[in-house]
This record gives sequence, structure tokens and C-alpha cells, in this order.
Amino acid sequence: MLNAVGREIPEELIAQGWKPYAGAHVRDGQYIRKQGPRTRICEKPQESKIAASIREAIVACGLKDGMTVSFHHHFRDGDFIVNMVMKEIVALGLKDITIAASSLGAAHDPVARYIEDGIVTGLQTSGIRGRMGEVVSHGRLKTPAILRSHGGRVRAIEEGEVHIDVAFIGSPTSDEYGNCRAVGGKSDCGVLSYAVVDSEYADKVVVITDTLVPYPNFPASIHGINVDYVVKVDEIGNPKKIASAAARMTQNPRDLMMAESVAKVMASTPWFKDGFSFQTGAGGPSLAVNRFIEPLMNELGIKMSFAIGGIAGPICELQRKGLVGCVVDTQDFDTGAIEDIRTNPRHYEISASEYANPANKGAFVNKLDFVILAALEVDVNFNVNVITGSDGVLRGAPGGHPDTAAGAKCTIIVTPLTRGRMATVCENVVTVTTPGECVDVVVTDYGVAVNPRRQDIVDCLDRAGIKHVSIKELQEKAYSLVGRPDPLQWNDKVVAILEARDGTVLDVVREIRPYKM
Amino acid sequence: MLNAVGREIPEELIAQGWKPYAGAHVRDGQYIRKQGPRTRICEKPQESKIAASIREAIVACGLKDGMTVSFHHHFRDGDFIVNMVMKEIVALGLKDITIAASSLGAAHDPVARYIEDGIVTGLQTSGIRGRMGEVVSHGRLKTPAILRSHGGRVRAIEEGEVHIDVAFIGSPTSDEYGNCRAVGGKSDCGVLSYAVVDSEYADKVVVITDTLVPYPNFPASIHGINVDYVVKVDEIGNPKKIASAAARMTQNPRDLMMAESVAKVMASTPWFKDGFSFQTGAGGPSLAVNRFIEPLMNELGIKMSFAIGGIAGPICELQRKGLVGCVVDTQDFDTGAIEDIRTNPRHYEISASEYANPANKGAFVNKLDFVILAALEVDVNFNVNVITGSDGVLRGAPGGHPDTAAGAKCTIIVTPLTRGRMATVCENVVTVTTPGECVDVVVTDYGVAVNPRRQDIVDCLDRAGIKHVSIKELQEKAYSLVGRPDPLQWNDKVVAILEARDGTVLDVVREIRPYKM
Repeated sequence: MLNAVGREIPEELIAQGWKPYAGAHVRDGQYIRKQGPRTRICEKPQESKIAASIREAIVACGLKDGMTVSFHHHFRDGDFIVNMVMKEIVALGLKDITIAASSLGAAHDPVARYIEDGIVTGLQTSGIRGRMGEVVSHGRLKTPAILRSHGGRVRAIEEGEVHIDVAFIGSPTSDEYGNCRAVGGKSDCGVLSYAVVDSEYADKVVVITDTLVPYPNFPASIHGINVDYVVKVDEIGNPKKIASAAARMTQNPRDLMMAESVAKVMASTPWFKDGFSFQTGAGGPSLAVNRFIEPLMNELGIKMSFAIGGIAGPICELQRKGLVGCVVDTQDFDTGAIEDIRTNPRHYEISASEYANPANKGAFVNKLDFVILAALEVDVNFNVNVITGSDGVLRGAPGGHPDTAAGAKCTIIVTPLTRGRMATVCENVVTVTTPGECVDVVVTDYGVAVNPRRQDIVDCLDRAGIKHVSIKELQEKAYSLVGRPDPLQWNDKVVAILEARDGTVLDVVREIRPYKM
Repeated sequence: MLNAVGREIPEELIAQGWKPYAGAHVRDGQYIRKQGPRTRICEKPQESKIAASIREAIVACGLKDGMTVSFHHHFRDGDFIVNMVMKEIVALGLKDITIAASSLGAAHDPVARYIEDGIVTGLQTSGIRGRMGEVVSHGRLKTPAILRSHGGRVRAIEEGEVHIDVAFIGSPTSDEYGNCRAVGGKSDCGVLSYAVVDSEYADKVVVITDTLVPYPNFPASIHGINVDYVVKVDEIGNPKKIASAAARMTQNPRDLMMAESVAKVMASTPWFKDGFSFQTGAGGPSLAVNRFIEPLMNELGIKMSFAIGGIAGPICELQRKGLVGCVVDTQDFDTGAIEDIRTNPRHYEISASEYANPANKGAFVNKLDFVILAALEVDVNFNVNVITGSDGVLRGAPGGHPDTAAGAKCTIIVTPLTRGRMATVCENVVTVTTPGECVDVVVTDYGVAVNPRRQDIVDCLDRAGIKHVSIKELQEKAYSLVGRPDPLQWNDKVVAILEARDGTVLDVVREIRPYKM
């Protein structure tokens, strides 16, 4: 069955109850009933919830074969939690475990082995990279990995599609009741936004920290009323890898040119006015947009009301200059951002649900004017791929991409036309991770294209004298530069399901077949 | 059927599914599944949730005959919200409405008329006073009022015993998405703790404010992701009655003597050490305890870790003197407390669930060392009554009394032995609102009594040379001073059910029969 982005959804998935993606807003306005979370009655005074070790906590939680455990990804490449917990789970002889993480990354190569050994049989995540991406792409995971956006994950948990038996929440600081803060320890990560839904919906919640602090550890990101056990370990992560040094502004002339182009497109629209809201990714050209909008804002005498998203130092600097009302944070990309939330009273942590969940009464993404996003590929239908590489192997993350694109008034993809010998603007993306109907403008080093659905933006660019071309022209230019890509070859087996934020199937990834000449 | 505090629970209630109270900790450790809250899918960008009027919001919410509406009581005697909303509900011709408020009070006399008119047919609240108490006590409400503690209310909502169709949440400030803060407007109330569960569990949520502020109104007490509509009105309350002037320290010698006695009892126990935690009510003798523990703390060189509860100025002053780690707040009793939370980064708002809910994984009350509470009556079994007057009429509120008493290591009731011509220490309280098993010490102006269950505290007092007597002696002394009270006379009809925090029936209140000589 073809879904609304023209992808064939296998009958076997339809038979299992999956529905094909039918458009970005088809569920808008539906009232739904969320799952009822489990909790524990604690009528008696209790001094402490501390368990002696991760293993003791796992046993106390009653973790069994076939269960689902969850993790967050705020420690990014410096995370020790997933590997520490999985090692104990393996040592306890448990099997048929599903990992439901907010994202997984380079730090988690050992999980690839547990997949190969058949201990981990299910994966639900946003990001999948490194060895894990390889083994999943080669069909080694027993069930298809389910890949979701950050907002879609909250929805899936709250609607009961993912049931978390035990959540393991690493926290820079915790008290003996499990009140957690993302600052004040040896391994600060700034916020714990993605773990909030885990703490609220998992049957059992284990907090793992390397810095126990006196009760109450407030204001708390994760609330002790949702926590069963607290475990103190030596180190929850590698602080150097949790936060990279302050993201340095790119000096690459191509990146700067594209960033300037994005800023000009923004300034041509009616939403570039006092009080506008803004999100940008942490990549070179995206980050550089901050530099180019600053003079344009000063020129017009306007300020941003809020900046949201994964936060990096440059937007915090813009706020210190008085150009941003407040910074709204679900993830910190660098030490600048972490330092800022520690000290700046107008830098706020929000939950992933507040950020991007389509199934609440209005997330922050719905109030976004502009979002600037990257892409591995974008095709002539404006569909974006941020998950599979040009070789078809899983090595990315939808993250907040589909959520912000669906919510923002103006979604701009910024990407070079080609990377190495690969066309970024192509006829058909390998995998659709953000539907083209949510993408408004594509800015490349070879020109700007506007989605024909957005005649209003076309008019803005025309009025501002900003040259633009059709997306087809960009694709043809790309192919003329690097050639038409050879089609990838796949086996039948579905190795991953790209779930749209509303729970339908946007696309599937199949087992990669080694390329044959 | 007699329950665990010796009260007869009518068979008709048992037949309806009510269970008799069986002890303070019988459900401890049970895992339960909470209700699944309803929410609305909002995939599309949306600018604003503002409705033109309260009436428009009521209609948009689809409020119908037989439904339940909820309110919070943070505006206390200055609340305009309940009357404004109920007036519109009545004007719309709706009937058979249940009000499920966190508390109701002197500001809500008009509701008594709606009860008499048969428009309001159900009441669920903590406090019930004034005209409303009169009409309910005289059997005019169609169904028995259900009276709960603050923690018990959260549990009842989360377990699904109370289903709120529409929550009306008055807020000092709100943005157009319903992010609410209790400060920054014309009618600040400091915190919105009691309304959090309403915002999370009601089918529809309407925020009513007199001060709209720019989005995002952060850090928010009530989150816009749970809000359907926002209504701007001229005034949400009378600021003078919301916050009384700074609670003045009592100069009444009897109050001071009792307060000093409480402080000495506290200081004789092992919990009066560095890092102890403390809650006291806002009454004269309770508040005065702050004054008397201060020199004792200085003498020992100890500090309080946290003070919790309904917060008044004196505890904030104690914190400013460096004697309190932080102030943890669910309700503000005076301008001093409201001013303090506005400016003091170590004064934290918590939800009612975090404060006192027995059905989560550990509320703050479970970490309390001392709580100092008042009583209308306390009997020889240490059962306390804070709901019915000596005439049997409803005029009080369990509030956090049963919750803190159940959680604290040392629960001290401070009350004069007699009030006017009535014995406060009596043979049998009119209504049991806090079970005697949770009450440890009774301090009066005629002596101190320790619950025989607490031999450890008896030993502390003995070691410290603090004279104490049996509770029976106190009761006999009281009766010798003011005489044995004449028994109240009741009709059969049950007009109110005192629900224990775990959902069982602690006691019932029957229709009062005018006293006949």
C-alpha cells in the first residue's frame, strides 16, 4: 500500500495493525485517552530509595526476559549509562530485551554485540549510528527497529504503543528520593527533557547518578514522586564527550554563504518581525545563521521572543546581547549552553512533550516561526532523509526534525547541493524521515528552492528580489555535477520502521544488500 | 460496620462500594494503575487558545448537565473564579453539577444557593465553611459531600474516583497558550500547586486570568500543553483577601506558652538535629513555634533542611537568617510568603502530589520530621476533628492535616484545652478527620500528652524532664472546667463522607437535628 509520501508500506505491517502515513495533520483535533501509568502507594515515611548497585536495582525492579528498558541521550557521546546497565542485564542472563531510548549513538557500540547475540531483540530510538546501525541494516536485529521523532516518542509512550517496564535515568545529580537535576555534578548535561516521559510512564524508574546531593534536589527536572530506586555509581559519563567545547562558528565559505542566504530568506517573510521565534540545529551552516540574522535584527530593531531546541552557545550569546527574550531548552549541544542554563534565569528547561509532542494541547513547535534544519538528502518532492546514508545504512536520527517542520510557519532546509560524490538534492530520498509537505524552503550553495505549496513564500522572495529556482533544477544541477546515483540494492526484510509523529508508517528501511557490479 | 477508628460506616455506603478505613498504612507498597488522562492532538500550528468569555469557554468545552467542574483555592477568601464560573453555568441553565474543588471557603456563599436550588448536586472538597457548610449540614445537598485531604484529593483524581470534566484554573498570569504563573499579575497567589492535578487529569482545562503576558510564561506552574482555552477577565480575585497582611506573631500569653512547650518537646527528640524538616500551620500557637525553635537551633548550632507546607512569612524570615535550607511551598498564607517566592531562589513550588499524595512513590510529607497542627477537637484516642464545630455543623477542612500526620516522624497537635465553654480535648470527637494512630503528642495550655503508641517519645520527654500526663487526664481536666458536652443530635441522613487519604471511609457526618431541650 502506498502512503501519502508515495512509499510502499508492506502488507505484513498493515496486517500487524500499522497504518500508512496519510498526511501531517490528519489526526489534528482528535481527543485521545492516554495510558494510565503505574505507580506505587507510599503511605509510610521512608528515608531513602538508594539501592546498592545497578544490579540490585534491576533485580528489585523485577526485570524479566521480554521486557523493555529505556534510556535518555542527554549525555550524548559521553554516555556510560546504557552500557553499564546493559552489561548487568546481560550478566544476569536476561534475554529478549527491547531498548526504548530517546536516542542512541556512537557511545553504544557494545549494544551491537548484544543484538548479534540475540539478547537485545527490539530497538526503539530516534538515533541509530555506528556499529548498531550496521548490524541493524544487515538484518541482525530480531524485530524491525522503530525510529521516531522526539515528539513522536512521547506520543507513542503516552498512547501506550511503547510500554516501558524499567526506565534507567542517568542524572548529573540526585537526592536519595530521586529528585534529579542536570546540573551541579561532575557530568552536567544541562537538561533532562527527554527523560521526563520515561519517569512518568515507566512501571519502574531507576535513577543513576555519580553525585548524590541533599534532599530536596530542587528545582527538579525528574521528580522523586516517580522514582523507585536511586543508584550511586562512580561515573555516569565522560564530561568531555557529553559537552563538546563551545561550538565554534564555521569559517567554511560555503557554509557562510548558505547561512547568509537563509538569513535573507527569513528576512523576506512576514514572520521576521519583533517577537519572532526561532530554532536552528547545531550544524555549521545552521549555527552560522545566528551570525547573519543578528545584523538584520539590529537593522530592523527587532528581537526574538524565544529560541528553542537543542541549544548551543551562539544563541545564548545572542540572548546576552539582548536580542532573544528567552531560551527554551530540550537538549544542550555544548558547554556554552550548559553553562548558560546553570546561571541564566531566562534559559528554561522544558520536557520533550512540551517541546514537540503532537498529542498534547499545543507543544512549543506549534508556536515556531522559523526552523532551520539540515538534511542528508532532500528530494524533488521536498521529502527529507536524515536517517540513512547514501549506502542505505542507518546512521542518523529524525530527532526533532519532523516535529519542528510540522509545527513551524517556515521550515528551511540548508544543505550543500552535493557532499563528496553524492547528490544531496535527489530524485527520491533513500528514506523519508520528514514529509515534503512540511518542508517550505531548501537553501543550497547552488540556489534556493521554495515548495510550490507555499506560494506565500514564493511571493516574499520575489518581492525581496531573492532569486530562486525549482527543486527539480537543483536536483538536475546536482546530478550534472556528481552523476545520477546508482540505485541501492535491498533484500526484502524490513529492518527499521520510520514512524511518523502521529504513529503511522512514513517509510521502512530494508536489509541492505551488498552492492554488486 | 465499625472501621479502624471505631466509627460506624453505614451499610448503604458499603453497598455502594465504599470501604471502611482499616488503618493508616494498609495500602502501603501496592502498585496501582492511574487513570489515563484525555488529551487533544494538536499537530497544526496554532497561535492562541483565547476564548472571548467564560461563557464561550464553557460552551466550547461542551459542559453538560451531570458533569463535574473543578477549582483550586489558592485565592483563598479573595477568590472570584468559583462564583464567576458558577454564575455562567447557572445562566446557561445547566444542572446536576458537581463541584470538585481543592477547597471552598468564605468567598463561596453563593454556591449555597445553587445547592438549595438543586443546580449543584455534588460537592467534593477539602474545606467547607460558611453558608455552604450550613446548607450541607442541614441536608440540602442531593448527594453526600465528599471531604478529602489535599493528598487524598490527588490520589482520588489519579485513581479515577473523581473524574473532572472541566477544570477552571484561575491564574495570576497566563500566556495565550495557558502557561500559568502565580506571580507577576494583579492578584498574585504565589503558587498553583493544588491545580496541577486538575490540569493533568481534567478532560478540558480552562485558564482564567486577569493578566495576559507574552508567550512563553515561564517557568510555568500550569503547563500550556494541558490547557484547552484561556479567558481574560477584569479581576480574578481581591488581592487583599488573597493574601492577608504578613501574619503577625501572636502576643497571646497562652499561645506563646503552648508554642514554647511544643518547641521543648521537639528539642527533646532525636529528630531535632542538623538537617531536620518541619511544617507548621498558620494558626497563632503553631506560627509562634517558629519563634521558640530559633534560639534552640542557635544553641545547638543546627539548621533545618527544609520547611514545607502552607507557607507564611515567619518561616521565610527564618530562612533569610540562614536557619532553613529551603522553603517548599504548596500554598501561601500571607504577603510575606508570596513576596518571598517571587524573589527567593531557594523557595520552591511543588505540586499537591509532591506534597502529600499517598499514591505516588514518595511525597514530601514522608520525609517530614515534625509537623505542628491545630485541632477543633482531639479525643482520648488521639483522633482529631478539624471539620465539624461543636454544634456539628461543617466548618473546617482536613487540608494537609491527615497527610502530614501520616508522614511525619513526630506529629504534634497544639490546642488550648478549652475554647469558650467547649472542651477541645474530649472523649469522642464529633468527626474523625485524622486518625489517632497518626497523632503522637498533644500540647495544651494544661499539659502535654503523648500517644502511648509512641513510647520512644515518652522516653524522650522523660529524659528531658518534660512533664506529661495521659490524654485522659487532659480530657477530665477539660470537662472539669467546662462541663461534659451534651451529645449532639442527628438525623439519619449522611450529608458528608470523610474520606481517608487512601480512599476508605474514616467517618461520616449526618444531618444535624436542631437541638431540643
